[in-house]
Amino acid sequence: MTDLLFERVAIIGIGLIGSSLARAIRAHGLARFVVAGDASADAIATTQALGFVDHATTDLAEAVENVDLVVICTPVATYAGIMEQIAAHLKPGAILSDVGSVKGAILSALVEFCPPSVQLVPGHPIAGTEQSGPAAGFASLFDGRWTILTPTEHADPLAVERVSALWRGVGSQVALMDPLHHDMVLAITSHLPHLIAYTIVGTATDLEETLQSEVIKYSASGFRDFTRIAASDPTMWRDIFLNNRDAVLDMLQRFTEDLSELQRAIRRGEGEFLFDRFTRARTIRRGVIDAKQA
Amino acid sequence: MTDLLFERVAIIGIGLIGSSLARAIRAHGLARFVVAGDASADAIATTQALGFVDHATTDLAEAVENVDLVVICTPVATYAGIMEQIAAHLKPGAILSDVGSVKGAILSALVEFCPPSVQLVPGHPIAGTEQSGPAAGFASLFDGRWTILTPTEHADPLAVERVSALWRGVGSQVALMDPLHHDMVLAITSHLPHLIAYTIVGTATDLEETLQSEVIKYSASGFRDFTRIAASDPTMWRDIFLNNRDAVLDMLQRFTEDLSELQRAIRRGEGEFLFDRFTRARTIRRGVIDAKQA
Repeated sequence: MTDLLFERVAIIGIGLIGSSLARAIRAHGLARFVVAGDASADAIATTQALGFVDHATTDLAEAVENVDLVVICTPVATYAGIMEQIAAHLKPGAILSDVGSVKGAILSALVEFCPPSVQLVPGHPIAGTEQSGPAAGFASLFDGRWTILTPTEHADPLAVERVSALWRGVGSQVALMDPLHHDMVLAITSHLPHLIAYTIVGTATDLEETLQSEVIKYSASGFRDFTRIAASDPTMWRDIFLNNRDAVLDMLQRFTEDLSELQRAIRRGEGEFLFDRFTRARTIRRGVIDAKQA
Repeated sequence: MTDLLFERVAIIGIGLIGSSLARAIRAHGLARFVVAGDASADAIATTQALGFVDHATTDLAEAVENVDLVVICTPVATYAGIMEQIAAHLKPGAILSDVGSVKGAILSALVEFCPPSVQLVPGHPIAGTEQSGPAAGFASLFDGRWTILTPTEHADPLAVERVSALWRGVGSQVALMDPLHHDMVLAITSHLPHLIAYTIVGTATDLEETLQSEVIKYSASGFRDFTRIAASDPTMWRDIFLNNRDAVLDMLQRFTEDLSELQRAIRRGEGEFLFDRFTRARTIRRGVIDAKQA
């Protein structure tokens, strides 16, 4: 237990990310006691059956009591409601964090309810799969990935360092970022790709029935990768798009302009233009491989 | 050698698909002698060094001589030029096939040059990776995948059956399809996904430099899957879009309409609409998993 960073940690929301974090904290011995809090009795029952936390409860107020670090791992639209339940029960000196994919718009919900004696350090691990729920998590999910923290300028550097140490402890690299800049970066790397994947899979869903079954049968040529992305949790993604609207619409605008340009090139048979565009795309792929994020 | 289907097979174009097919034919003992023909001296040198065929040559006319089955595995725009070189050297009674991702538009190039004594059976294995070149191939590429054959109504059923047997022999399931219907199915399952992946990676390429390096760093949240798809061979994809223009533009039209609808829902904050659309997308994913194409 030489890596111990916290006495008690509470994970609020025990889905893919929450349950992976709980497992990773345990696997690396980063906390002495891990509590899972979740409004869903089913999720708590599964969590108890899998036995990867020390205590699991549907009572969120109880979950955070006497806890040194609370990490909210639920869809971002639930933050205000969760804070109403837990704020009065947070231990003075505790650190409050989250893993939400949107940082700008959700900050107000956390700041408004966060007691002055509690340090707020929002975070976002850039990791995940298309699976959902406590059974889908695994301890190595964050290994080799990045976690972005978006503390306000008033944040206690010591609290920021303790949260950083936790993420490093589960194998992640840590970067600090302004919340609104985070939202812009994620709009292009994550939110727009998901929106597009949802769209194209939806387009296929609207095809006549025979064609649809063929699309499924012959999906190995590109389409199946989109179906995997589009299998992600609908509630979480609804909340992301509603809470990062401006950045997503901005990136979407750029995307549709670029798509129109390729569309025109196809219509006019401009092979050289297409070839140049396709060749440029390979450079970015090389960057992703070099950054070990492939 | 109980599985022997052909005495001599020639693979014209020894890239990812061609070299995988050559390896698979060898691995399963489906032909006694496998020849690789490719205009690129580099590709032939690599092929010879890797030693997965019995003979490799840059002389395509020589490659097809006395061969029972010729499979063209080059970008579809090269077909006419290749046919000019090999047509006069094809053995009477030989079968001519290909692996191109477009079937309607390319048929004329093959039909025009194909001698009456040669049986034409166009094909398309629905398999691949983002890699290119003879070193990238592997014998199990077609295992568990589908191969679509698009013979004309005049095709000899025996020739169709022999080509089917070859694809079954390398682990593939085989379906017969009308060429134009094939092009429509592939427009949605493969061509549109690639076009979209190329577009979004291009959109990221146009971002200012700092933001671009962040996009690469934090690509694990969806974007990297698009970079993988967009790393595919530019020449091959240019030819696909130019030769399946109508079907691609039709599917693209449907896609952009659906995207506008989601864009409007985000702008207006219509959470229920987004949730419904995202939930529907999961059904198709389940179909892909059930069809063992995930």
